Amino acid sequence: MKAALNIEPIGIVRSPVTDAVDAGWGDVLAEVHLREPLADGLRGIEQFSHVIVLYLLHQAAFDPARDLVRRPRGREDMPLVGIFAQRARHRPNAIGVTAVRLLAHDGNVLRVQGLDAIDGTPVLDIKPYYPVYDRVDGARTPEWVDRLMAGYFS
Amino acid sequence: MKAALNIEPIGIVRSPVTDAVDAGWGDVLAEVHLREPLADGLRGIEQFSHVIVLYLLHQAAFDPARDLVRRPRGREDMPLVGIFAQRARHRPNAIGVTAVRLLAHDGNVLRVQGLDAIDGTPVLDIKPYYPVYDRVDGARTPEWVDRLMAGYFS
Repeated sequence: MKAALNIEPIGIVRSPVTDAVDAGWGDVLAEVHLREPLADGLRGIEQFSHVIVLYLLHQAAFDPARDLVRRPRGREDMPLVGIFAQRARHRPNAIGVTAVRLLAHDGNVLRVQGLDAIDGTPVLDIKPYYPVYDRVDGARTPEWVDRLMAGYFS
Repeated sequence: MKAALNIEPIGIVRSPVTDAVDAGWGDVLAEVHLREPLADGLRGIEQFSHVIVLYLLHQAAFDPARDLVRRPRGREDMPLVGIFAQRARHRPNAIGVTAVRLLAHDGNVLRVQGLDAIDGTPVLDIKPYYPVYDRVDGARTPEWVDRLMAGYFS
């Protein structure tokens, strides 16, 4: 099942947040700095209000014995669920995906709001947010998700 | 900017679709087969109605001269926009992200609807769809997106 994986960072996150936290990301203003040769790849992105940032959770490490099934954030009031049923960063492939508001585009730099990635995070991709693609209406989640995510973005 | 990239497929897509197409994905029923040692990582996922599948666009190849700025699908009625302002597969890091309906979970297999990845696509991650995280209300896109995506899922 080995595939030709040719993945390397296209840029880096610049953020005032330097340590991972579990709340308050919604107001965070950050920047994505792309490598200069890729700057033209942002042409026209300012016509989108939101983009999806793919990034490397570079401080994560997956230990199957600890992380394959776990309680979200280790909280006793959370159920034991698999790593693919939660968004924890210690996952087999440490890739984060977050939809953020795009505030400005200037050269190789995007200013964004709500990016829950710490300063120095390697960026893997930027995709425009297509509602037809990315927006699900009426999605159902277990009740613990609401308890877990209270305050995460607000 | 080199980071320790330790990414390898966690599974594979099984789909009746064997060649990339630009329409009609919404009704496609496919399966994601995870590697057996990771099956426990799906525990509890059936409580979610939708999941996000990250996969490798394994037939893509990025050529900056051709792909950094291009017309979506090469269509003359589309504007010249950067690769990060569109969802084309020929991108610097060939990672696809699609939100799909989760129909069933049985062991190491997920049955899903609407996955626009061909048979044999390597899977990199499965994430539960958290509306608070993934759903953007009122996102703005340029008008060409609607023309481009007409029929893509329906």
